[in-house]
Amino acid sequence: MKVIFDTDPGIDDAMALLYLSKLPEIELLGITTVVGNADIATTTRNALFLRQRFGLAAPVIQGAGETLDGKVKPEPVAVHGHNGLGDIEIPAHVDETGLRAGTAAQFIIDTLRAHPGEVTIIAVGRMTNLALALRQDPAIAGLAKQVVIMGGAFGYEGRSGNITPAAEANIYGDPVAADEIFAAGWPVVVVGLDVTHDIILSEDYLAALSAEVGENGELLRQMSDHYARFYKEIMGLAGVVGHDLLAVTYTLRPDWFETRSGPICVVRDGIAAGQTIQMPAARKGGHPDWANRPAQLVCTAVHADAVLRHYRETVAG
Amino acid sequence: MKVIFDTDPGIDDAMALLYLSKLPEIELLGITTVVGNADIATTTRNALFLRQRFGLAAPVIQGAGETLDGKVKPEPVAVHGHNGLGDIEIPAHVDETGLRAGTAAQFIIDTLRAHPGEVTIIAVGRMTNLALALRQDPAIAGLAKQVVIMGGAFGYEGRSGNITPAAEANIYGDPVAADEIFAAGWPVVVVGLDVTHDIILSEDYLAALSAEVGENGELLRQMSDHYARFYKEIMGLAGVVGHDLLAVTYTLRPDWFETRSGPICVVRDGIAAGQTIQMPAARKGGHPDWANRPAQLVCTAVHADAVLRHYRETVAG
Repeated sequence: MKVIFDTDPGIDDAMALLYLSKLPEIELLGITTVVGNADIATTTRNALFLRQRFGLAAPVIQGAGETLDGKVKPEPVAVHGHNGLGDIEIPAHVDETGLRAGTAAQFIIDTLRAHPGEVTIIAVGRMTNLALALRQDPAIAGLAKQVVIMGGAFGYEGRSGNITPAAEANIYGDPVAADEIFAAGWPVVVVGLDVTHDIILSEDYLAALSAEVGENGELLRQMSDHYARFYKEIMGLAGVVGHDLLAVTYTLRPDWFETRSGPICVVRDGIAAGQTIQMPAARKGGHPDWANRPAQLVCTAVHADAVLRHYRETVAG
Repeated sequence: MKVIFDTDPGIDDAMALLYLSKLPEIELLGITTVVGNADIATTTRNALFLRQRFGLAAPVIQGAGETLDGKVKPEPVAVHGHNGLGDIEIPAHVDETGLRAGTAAQFIIDTLRAHPGEVTIIAVGRMTNLALALRQDPAIAGLAKQVVIMGGAFGYEGRSGNITPAAEANIYGDPVAADEIFAAGWPVVVVGLDVTHDIILSEDYLAALSAEVGENGELLRQMSDHYARFYKEIMGLAGVVGHDLLAVTYTLRPDWFETRSGPICVVRDGIAAGQTIQMPAARKGGHPDWANRPAQLVCTAVHADAVLRHYRETVAG
């Protein structure tokens, strides 16, 4: 299974990258970076650092440092820390041999054109690189196998937003890009807060990772200390949420998820900016703003126990 | 329990009025009408017709025929029919002795001032009358016991809208009014699609009402024929949804509901116009658009069996 991983590391991005490094089913073709959990220089540096630490062969390609609407929307430092990885110590100079020249958007285009119908894009940051690629070469929508994104929230279990009461952070960070992604004719699967908030990595779970996985498990545990404070103080959760790793799980095991089909629009402005709204396909009659868009899949429920077990067994393997 | 019932009959409004006529616990002080399921002349005529049919003593006071934003937003005739009551036969001349002069907004003000702290407003149409009353006399927010509204949708069980993918019809019909209602300092309880879509009156249930209740049960059954076609064709439901009656049930039996507390904003414009968004009180940190608003209650789950049994036993009693 050929995969491009579009990411803004990010603590849960690091969890997903460790997962990808241990999955023989997945051929990782490239790691594209985007502004989000930190600025673009930092997320790219972090991707290179993690690539080396986790022994990933795929190149890193730097992507967008600005969102399509040109607005600067930094993530709260409270979430991923100043360095994007929970303020763990990172070497001053990371190995840059894995960095490939060119833009992420161009890499996405070239890779989809080289393997038509074969490539899954897993995008766990803002959708800016994907939207830039689509703008540059709209025909790529017909070439992707599927696009699995971590982002959005549809109200299931009362989960309608995290960065605002209406919006999830990746979509809020670039609502224009996300709206263009959903409008395109490729199959998009949305792994949003409706399901990611079921993937709680408790303190015990993280300690077990450290024990079973060794130094890379310990790295995740250390990063998560910072993340855990945020979840405890702001969200009242005992543990950290493994948002991004769940997009990887979906790619392997869609049978562990329930989904709802229907076209999706993103609110671009106002108090609901960044909100994702789906018109369920089961609803007849249609609505003009949604009617001309393709049906996409939203994950509405997940077998969380199976996911947490699979993640632990995989990264320890 | 003193109640003002603000309504736009409406088939499920008729269900609620029959319920109110049979509840000795409730002292119905007035029936105020509003544009919505039909124009204001029609909803007022229907209120007078139902008042007489159900033997209600409370006066009918005509309310707003236009929404606060001045936009004309007729309900689809498919829902409640041309005459607002499923196109059953209504006498050409209804008894108007129950009609009281003055505006609904003024009636609401006068009634709250006459019984400070004692009156529950149950509002099951657009919120226009309540908002006009608040604009005219903001101090009434401190005089209502509570405001129980049928309206809105928060995504629970995938229920985020009916008139659009984002919005429920009563809120969409006058989003400005609804937003002002939620901003005011009275306790508002929202009985929205998250719970009303659990109250499905099946064909068998309606037949039983007709058998047990007599001619007024048969009247509801006949009205519902039209309503049932809409639910079957558009929503794929076998039965009709008793939206408005559920606001009455909440007033009597709040213990049958689960709720979430937090301030609520309404989207006034754009593709999400009419959407209701709550910031859960459990979420720390706040958000400026919500931060200065009072916490209101959203119903997130209901014991539907208990409600359906109670309704049937009450209207047959």
